[in-house]
Amino acid sequence: MKSTVKKILTVSTAFGIGLAWTAAAWSAESLDDVMKRRGLTQKDLLAAAKTYTPTGGRDEFLVFSSGGQSGQVLVYGIPSMRILKYIAVFTPEPWQGYGFDDESKEVLAQGKIDGKQLNYGDTHHPAISETNGEYDGEWLFINDKANPRVAVIDLKDFETKQIVVNPIMKSEHGGAFVTPNTEYVIEATQYAAPYSKDFVPLSKFNDEYRGAVTYWKFNREKGRIEPENSFSVELPPYSQDLSDAGKLDSDGWSFTNSFCTERYIGGIESGRPPFEAGCSQKDTDFLHMINWKRAAELVAEGKATKINDHDVITMDTAIKEGILFLIPEPKSPHGVDVSPDGKYIIVAGKLDTHASVYSFEKMKALIDAKDFAGTDPYGIPILDLKKTLHTQVQVGLGPLHNQYDSKPCIVYTSIYVDSQVTKWNYCEGKVLDKISIHYNIGHLMSMEGDTVSPKGHYLVSLNKLAIDRFNPVGPLHPQNHQLIDISNDKMELIYDMPLPLGEPHYAVAISADKLKPKIRYSTGWNSRKDERSEYRVRPGRERTEVADGVTHVYGTLIRSHITPEIIQVEEGSTVSLHFTNVERAEDETHGFAIRGFDVNLSAEPGKTVSATFKVDKPGVYPYYCTEFCSALHLEMQGYLLVTPKGYQAEEASLQEGQSYSQEDFDKQVKANTDTQAVIDSVVEYITARNFKDFDPVVALVEDATDQLNFAADAKKKAEDYAASGDWQNATLWAQQWFQYQVKAADIGLRAKTYLDQNDAKVVNQ
Amino acid sequence: MKSTVKKILTVSTAFGIGLAWTAAAWSAESLDDVMKRRGLTQKDLLAAAKTYTPTGGRDEFLVFSSGGQSGQVLVYGIPSMRILKYIAVFTPEPWQGYGFDDESKEVLAQGKIDGKQLNYGDTHHPAISETNGEYDGEWLFINDKANPRVAVIDLKDFETKQIVVNPIMKSEHGGAFVTPNTEYVIEATQYAAPYSKDFVPLSKFNDEYRGAVTYWKFNREKGRIEPENSFSVELPPYSQDLSDAGKLDSDGWSFTNSFCTERYIGGIESGRPPFEAGCSQKDTDFLHMINWKRAAELVAEGKATKINDHDVITMDTAIKEGILFLIPEPKSPHGVDVSPDGKYIIVAGKLDTHASVYSFEKMKALIDAKDFAGTDPYGIPILDLKKTLHTQVQVGLGPLHNQYDSKPCIVYTSIYVDSQVTKWNYCEGKVLDKISIHYNIGHLMSMEGDTVSPKGHYLVSLNKLAIDRFNPVGPLHPQNHQLIDISNDKMELIYDMPLPLGEPHYAVAISADKLKPKIRYSTGWNSRKDERSEYRVRPGRERTEVADGVTHVYGTLIRSHITPEIIQVEEGSTVSLHFTNVERAEDETHGFAIRGFDVNLSAEPGKTVSATFKVDKPGVYPYYCTEFCSALHLEMQGYLLVTPKGYQAEEASLQEGQSYSQEDFDKQVKANTDTQAVIDSVVEYITARNFKDFDPVVALVEDATDQLNFAADAKKKAEDYAASGDWQNATLWAQQWFQYQVKAADIGLRAKTYLDQNDAKVVNQ
Repeated sequence: MKSTVKKILTVSTAFGIGLAWTAAAWSAESLDDVMKRRGLTQKDLLAAAKTYTPTGGRDEFLVFSSGGQSGQVLVYGIPSMRILKYIAVFTPEPWQGYGFDDESKEVLAQGKIDGKQLNYGDTHHPAISETNGEYDGEWLFINDKANPRVAVIDLKDFETKQIVVNPIMKSEHGGAFVTPNTEYVIEATQYAAPYSKDFVPLSKFNDEYRGAVTYWKFNREKGRIEPENSFSVELPPYSQDLSDAGKLDSDGWSFTNSFCTERYIGGIESGRPPFEAGCSQKDTDFLHMINWKRAAELVAEGKATKINDHDVITMDTAIKEGILFLIPEPKSPHGVDVSPDGKYIIVAGKLDTHASVYSFEKMKALIDAKDFAGTDPYGIPILDLKKTLHTQVQVGLGPLHNQYDSKPCIVYTSIYVDSQVTKWNYCEGKVLDKISIHYNIGHLMSMEGDTVSPKGHYLVSLNKLAIDRFNPVGPLHPQNHQLIDISNDKMELIYDMPLPLGEPHYAVAISADKLKPKIRYSTGWNSRKDERSEYRVRPGRERTEVADGVTHVYGTLIRSHITPEIIQVEEGSTVSLHFTNVERAEDETHGFAIRGFDVNLSAEPGKTVSATFKVDKPGVYPYYCTEFCSALHLEMQGYLLVTPKGYQAEEASLQEGQSYSQEDFDKQVKANTDTQAVIDSVVEYITARNFKDFDPVVALVEDATDQLNFAADAKKKAEDYAASGDWQNATLWAQQWFQYQVKAADIGLRAKTYLDQNDAKVVNQ
Repeated sequence: MKSTVKKILTVSTAFGIGLAWTAAAWSAESLDDVMKRRGLTQKDLLAAAKTYTPTGGRDEFLVFSSGGQSGQVLVYGIPSMRILKYIAVFTPEPWQGYGFDDESKEVLAQGKIDGKQLNYGDTHHPAISETNGEYDGEWLFINDKANPRVAVIDLKDFETKQIVVNPIMKSEHGGAFVTPNTEYVIEATQYAAPYSKDFVPLSKFNDEYRGAVTYWKFNREKGRIEPENSFSVELPPYSQDLSDAGKLDSDGWSFTNSFCTERYIGGIESGRPPFEAGCSQKDTDFLHMINWKRAAELVAEGKATKINDHDVITMDTAIKEGILFLIPEPKSPHGVDVSPDGKYIIVAGKLDTHASVYSFEKMKALIDAKDFAGTDPYGIPILDLKKTLHTQVQVGLGPLHNQYDSKPCIVYTSIYVDSQVTKWNYCEGKVLDKISIHYNIGHLMSMEGDTVSPKGHYLVSLNKLAIDRFNPVGPLHPQNHQLIDISNDKMELIYDMPLPLGEPHYAVAISADKLKPKIRYSTGWNSRKDERSEYRVRPGRERTEVADGVTHVYGTLIRSHITPEIIQVEEGSTVSLHFTNVERAEDETHGFAIRGFDVNLSAEPGKTVSATFKVDKPGVYPYYCTEFCSALHLEMQGYLLVTPKGYQAEEASLQEGQSYSQEDFDKQVKANTDTQAVIDSVVEYITARNFKDFDPVVALVEDATDQLNFAADAKKKAEDYAASGDWQNATLWAQQWFQYQVKAADIGLRAKTYLDQNDAKVVNQ
């Protein structure tokens, strides 16, 4: 390579200044040309300007969307609508090592049901932790409809930390929703079932099948749900559905709607009309209203019943203590959404054409006056529909969900059958605007639209069908999230975003500046337990230890080698590999894959990850780093050698494939010296400028300094071997010294480019 | 609901015409306002216009990108850079049911290694099938570096159909690359290992560790690789790397480069310099050149050796028969890319600053003249570097890969360390332009850039680090694919696209109009075997049969019910559920999830999917459709009831939760009659227009007709029950009749909207 580093650096610099054109010139298109070629209207151009985000630009809001049956949460930006991350939650995902490293396997194992590992979830409703009813950007919760569970995700590192299994439900839907200070995470049943794990015939449906709302206690200090401090309220075998927590005026209450209060049981295979017929016959279903603050006190007072070792407030107790009420709601409702001031609760009945606005004040007054319209078959007091209504508005065919604007009294309702969004005033009960979407909208989402202070600006329509919106990709279509500008009176559709994986249900959007994720872990960190890993190791202290019959390898990962590079164990051993990524540089993740054992790890800077597996058969198993981390990434490799039982190594040394002489050594040292001169010139360039004013450059300089320190170590080894006349090792260590230089040059050039592009100034020294 | 359908339809229509504004007007932003608010330059606006794709618009090119260690392939559009689909390949993915239904489990099981199920792959290089060196858009191939395997994906439905395990490799990298008529799919070793599965000590590395190139025979009729007609060529224990097939002038040959021809073995844990030092010492490595057409003949002539029941042409045979040659290439090369005319092979040496352009004509002439510079330690003839070179060009620090333009002699090379793309003329050996990317580019991709006729226009830079480009999402960053406009002399960066999942390596882009995926399957289709499923069933013929101790349920899925709705089996049974989606409508996918058994299915229109599992414990297990398929999607539910062994059902009928009278029936019939009037008006609206000119509307009309036929069936049942005085069943079937009407209305409204938005014309009838 000789002094080519220097040459090319010079060439690169020259290109920064100007390039003499030699080829025939191809004329560039004007804006008009482009619009004509692509058939764009002025309206399209305006939409483009509202959403296009140039390189390095930031989105105003980040969205956390359920991934539906993909079992994940996805994160995207508004207004660019670019997906930034899929967070693995209920489904193993190898890129993140989730479900592949021992640490995350422990999280997934928390979600076992009846001892069985589950490898997916049907995620529905993400909820961001709140403080005083505002998103605080610290935690995210999401439920699994299929196997009633709730997961906790830390927004410091976007990782799943905990999964809790509902102790009494067999199906759920109305989760996760948080109370205004994240005291509890709410989860409500979908399809009724017995609380016990026993078989109960459907002939006992009305008596022994039950719904419930569970209040999961969240300990913010620990960042974990505390199952032992959580409780449920027993509900009738209606199909409970979405829920929402009261806020401000209605704080302390939660609301859960329902469908199939007919308690119909299908059986089309035996000639009975299907569920869909029997579950949609009545004109109204029931909104459940629960005083959760009082419920928590009742539990503390010992008035709960232990079912499956979990505190349940029975319906009888709930009725007696006056914490549970029903209100009729038309018809087969889906969304229930409390207004920002907590005064109103809007319910959209999917088989009604109206949205119903309930007044919390009226509901509360009726309860206080014990003014009930009757009771349901289980004795739960029913409030009168008309007496609790503020207004009803005809919003369209198949209304589902409601989201609030920053402007007072403005709400948006998704209209499934009409494929529209209706904007209306819920104070005055007036429709203001409608917009067509493509197609069949489910949920919709405004910015922080379910908090006490929605942020306006944008609305996303989470459509269930895309049909003809995108290039076709086979029978299984993406979903379509459409971005709507709601800044003005008239809603404007400004972007169509395909969802490439999963079927999102609900999503929540938070102001991007509320999120402060970290870029690295403390060195040797078990990120799933949020503590120093017992398996961490420092560079230079790597070792192998056998304990309790398990061969523990305490290794490290750094650009561009894995320590150890050779691991030899005997057939039948259990191996437990522990790797600490000892990088400090942002985005310097390393991976680890090995053939045939289903082991794939992801170690972000600072993280310690482990993989424990049995080696059943003798053989040769190559391993390597799976993240393209440096120029010599492909050389970041090693071998696991499994010897047959009782194998005695022959006294054979490695066959060197190549021999090196003093001449090779001298040549390498010359190249290194030249390279060092180039590095010095880059260092000079950087330090002559106000680089300390740029955090990313400060980080790069730290990283480059690390690499140059490693280079100095390798240089010393090379020189020591040279002094002893061992030209083989001297040359190889001189090469390693050079490799560290290349890494330092890589970083230095990035720092230099950054300074150039950000108008850094020369400073007096 | 009464006649609300009619009302709201009228309201909706009114909104289409105009809306009386009642709220205070919020003024809309002008383009200048938006640019100012968002800090956009004129150049940004031009880039926005070049990439923004309005609703319903199509992308010009579709990209198939490896997902790296996510084990998937992702599909995105150019220029919108929107991701359209993640195709599950080596990793189970529940949204697609991949690895969850029996049919796809069989595909994944083909990829077992030593009997072990693997749940990830490290996908690297996708390849589209070719005809005469052009992409034909029929098949996609992708390799797994970690566990040497190749997968076959059908571009008719974007599904993985086959996985083959390499019979001799323990690690690979240089796959998948196809020959110009997809005769073979090429796969090359990465890290050398013994061909046998035995342990071989590293002291025997030079003698018993080996590389190889495997040529997988692809049978286009069957759409499957034929392992029995595939073969390999034995190679030295160099770390083989990327490969490419010759084309036109060089058709019949394939090229594979390598690094670590030093055959160095690391061992930093025992004081040896690491692999990265010893593998990068020599100034040149070797390009391998193999005559695969002659090799195939040699196999046919019986000159291959069976190793692990696989045909291998040994090095001795390859040398003797004159099909294997080496050419020195500087230094630790990565990409090897044959020019569109097949005349040149460009190699980028990542530790060199040059790209080397080899002339196939010169190589061939030397071979024909037996003019060799020597042999390697294994006796393979080496061609002289200088004699084979056309030119060398200094392109930058850390050049990796090359992609071709539609303009003659123009190539783009990714420059890793400099974080740049260099555009240069490989005929004249001249650098033309450079552009900075963000950051550390690996592969790059031009449109059909590795075929005989690249399409120009766009280039994508597949960057390994994103660092500061996007809103932060924790220590694990997305990757960054940057779209570059190459239409003009000067490259222009026009879009930054985050990669939310996985670490793509290579990607290929095909003109979108070459892809013709289907939108539905023939009814009762096993999509993984591409044949009628033995478990298909027609609506009305659903049944349960016990065979060989397994309870087979032959069921159907349709908006909005699952048949059967109740399944009752005894504890300890093995249940095999088979569901056929009997929809014909585009995008009408249904899912199936059931609690606790890790069963989640996806059935696109026409598909039959199965899940077989053992029910160990008595209990109640709700199931439901996971795709939001219709307004009554939530009611698309059922129960699996597992009775204890020997359970005798009591003679107890279901407790009806609700009773219906003649009055209820009459009310429902009235609602249905009103609804029918609305539907008739929509039908009239559609049929009065030239709807037959719009394929999507024709499809919707077909679908609506299906639903109305179902409605007629339900109506008949309702009327029959009414005639017999059974008001309970009469009312419920009348409700079901109404539900089919709602589905028809949903479809009809979509058709009406489509006609409105596409300027349909009233036609004389």
